[in-house]
Amino acid sequence: MKSFFRVQTPEQLYQKLSRFKPLSSDEVPLEESLHRVLAENVTSSTNLPQFPRSTVDGFALKAKDTYGVSEKNPAIFQIIGEIPMGKISEITLKDGEAVKIATGGMVPKGADAVEMVEYTEWVDSRTIHAFKTLSPLENVIQAGEDIKEGEVVLRKGCLIRPQEIGLLAGIGRTDVRVFLRPKVGIISSGDEIVPIEQEPLSGEVRDINRHTIVSMVKETGGIPVFLGIAKDRFNNLKEKIELGMRESDMVVITGGSSVGTLDLVGEVLQSFPGTEILGHGLSIRPGKPTLLAEIQGKPFLGLPGHPVSAMVIFHLFGKSILKILSGLSDEKGPRLRLRARAGRNIPSVAGKEDYVRVKLEEKDGILWACPVFGKSGAISHLINADGLLKIGINDEGLEEGEEAEIILI
Amino acid sequence: MKSFFRVQTPEQLYQKLSRFKPLSSDEVPLEESLHRVLAENVTSSTNLPQFPRSTVDGFALKAKDTYGVSEKNPAIFQIIGEIPMGKISEITLKDGEAVKIATGGMVPKGADAVEMVEYTEWVDSRTIHAFKTLSPLENVIQAGEDIKEGEVVLRKGCLIRPQEIGLLAGIGRTDVRVFLRPKVGIISSGDEIVPIEQEPLSGEVRDINRHTIVSMVKETGGIPVFLGIAKDRFNNLKEKIELGMRESDMVVITGGSSVGTLDLVGEVLQSFPGTEILGHGLSIRPGKPTLLAEIQGKPFLGLPGHPVSAMVIFHLFGKSILKILSGLSDEKGPRLRLRARAGRNIPSVAGKEDYVRVKLEEKDGILWACPVFGKSGAISHLINADGLLKIGINDEGLEEGEEAEIILI
Repeated sequence: MKSFFRVQTPEQLYQKLSRFKPLSSDEVPLEESLHRVLAENVTSSTNLPQFPRSTVDGFALKAKDTYGVSEKNPAIFQIIGEIPMGKISEITLKDGEAVKIATGGMVPKGADAVEMVEYTEWVDSRTIHAFKTLSPLENVIQAGEDIKEGEVVLRKGCLIRPQEIGLLAGIGRTDVRVFLRPKVGIISSGDEIVPIEQEPLSGEVRDINRHTIVSMVKETGGIPVFLGIAKDRFNNLKEKIELGMRESDMVVITGGSSVGTLDLVGEVLQSFPGTEILGHGLSIRPGKPTLLAEIQGKPFLGLPGHPVSAMVIFHLFGKSILKILSGLSDEKGPRLRLRARAGRNIPSVAGKEDYVRVKLEEKDGILWACPVFGKSGAISHLINADGLLKIGINDEGLEEGEEAEIILI
Repeated sequence: MKSFFRVQTPEQLYQKLSRFKPLSSDEVPLEESLHRVLAENVTSSTNLPQFPRSTVDGFALKAKDTYGVSEKNPAIFQIIGEIPMGKISEITLKDGEAVKIATGGMVPKGADAVEMVEYTEWVDSRTIHAFKTLSPLENVIQAGEDIKEGEVVLRKGCLIRPQEIGLLAGIGRTDVRVFLRPKVGIISSGDEIVPIEQEPLSGEVRDINRHTIVSMVKETGGIPVFLGIAKDRFNNLKEKIELGMRESDMVVITGGSSVGTLDLVGEVLQSFPGTEILGHGLSIRPGKPTLLAEIQGKPFLGLPGHPVSAMVIFHLFGKSILKILSGLSDEKGPRLRLRARAGRNIPSVAGKEDYVRVKLEEKDGILWACPVFGKSGAISHLINADGLLKIGINDEGLEEGEEAEIILI
């Protein structure tokens, strides 16, 4: 049954992810939309602002009345009132007149600019001097200047951050259509694995992977559903995978013991109709035994049993698949990847993409990545790490000072 | 009442935050501890691993039996059995003997190393050749090598990420003590502000700030409690602030109209016993009118009414205060700040710390930050931005290619 174990590069496997598609969508109240993914193009039904507003505290007036003025040669204005906040002002300005206005206030008819209070001086209770020449529309934001009625302001696939929520609030959207959050069935496998509340007998180990994978699914916006610990037996694995496939949008299994279990998992998957093994075996370190399949249109990810390897592969592939299912097409900025310089020589072997656990440190504005020491299987390792440093498949390592990509973890 | 409005630098205000202290703590189930802050030093009650484990698939044997072997001159081993997963093996190895073992399997008595399967060859069903010299403990992780019983493995104040959850699971912690999440009372103020579900009349605007601040509080691990929209009147403001102070750990107000409202808020605060105004007026752009106070030991943050300014200041100060209340003392790595080069000249004025909304783009491994255009009050502005670029208080701008700090938003 090892016939399908042909080692691929991570890049080859990434390319196969495009076959998976976003889930369906649902309307949710705006307050519940944070960090969800927009499933509609949002068109504004209103101008923003809805009326011309002052961007400063000062006096609304006609710009032309300030032409050529200076500190020594101020213009004089009659103050004919004050703009109340939140109300329409009936005032219409004539030449040489001005009204007091606060930031955000509605610029009245006849006025086309606002002189900042800093450039004015009261002459008497109804008269000011203005010292600064304004151009028309100076210190005014016009109706629709931020957003125009009918404009598409947000596009399907965008991640809803606080500012997207602010925009939606500003145009009066109380509900918004978002993609469903993917339900992820999670299985731990291995004869040696016991639940964490159980005292392990010699030879047994606690189920770390359940808890790390559940957490990573949550972090990526998915809904984790733990399906239990499967023994390394065909029927036991089959039963759990069947359950996961029926009730979830994606299934993740962590193999108890490296290649062996995932081979057996591969056999189980072949017994489902409509299974396509997309990859089993990756030129990557850690994480070589990784298995990816499509079963009846749903993604199935088999991770190594090693907690550290499982986390690294879930960072790379699990999160990528979840983002596809979540409909995310427009992740703003390089949110998770950055670059740092190697704090010392880091050896690697060509032919494998290497993900080295590193601690990041900033010195004089330069970000340095230093490998965390210790045996690679150690979970304590990841505690001291801030990120994974990527060494390309064709590189034999990094020299001190060389730059590389970092995935924050 | 403007006597207390003495402009400070952001740095001066940051230094005053240290007076605030973490909230109390509570035990929660491990599954609910993701992204919480640990409120205890965690000591391991067990070794990890609990027994010597193989880190590879292969054959456990005595390292000394492989000394001097090579491809041309292999050592020969009698295979006396196979290590079952999850069980104690009763096997004790003698010289020249080996047992089959999978990754994670318990290395039996008498063995001190594991030869990888790649470097072996079956001679017959009970005999193998081994080609590679091993040193003692090669491919073996010893009991306690990852974590030692009695060792402090996690410290109070650390953020619980998936890997911390993995570690806690590994040592059998089903519950964990974490700091309480700060409850944040949020008030919108301004006579022009209406709830978003209401169609604004001319002069009125929808309450964007409620929704952006609520979202940012959630993002930072706080529990937002919206207290309503206050009119720009002493009693109305006082009533809402009193309610917030009674029921929350921190209160945030957004001022309807720049300086004016926050002056009035300052007056209201002075009417509470035990109020200390820590700052009102910052040499920062945007966000000059910012107000920070301590009322009966609790932080009070007054933000400008401008949605963009309010968000920028909340990123800088609101999040910092929330992290202090949350007990966070050990934020792993530079999670939120990175550096990028200015994509073009960016002017600024000395004497103000400037936060410019920028879009980030990676080209050939270099991160570039380009200012987003448009009037600064525009919320649409923030939609196109990935981060805030900081221009120092003494800088008159950045030249194209110069590096600066970025806060991801």
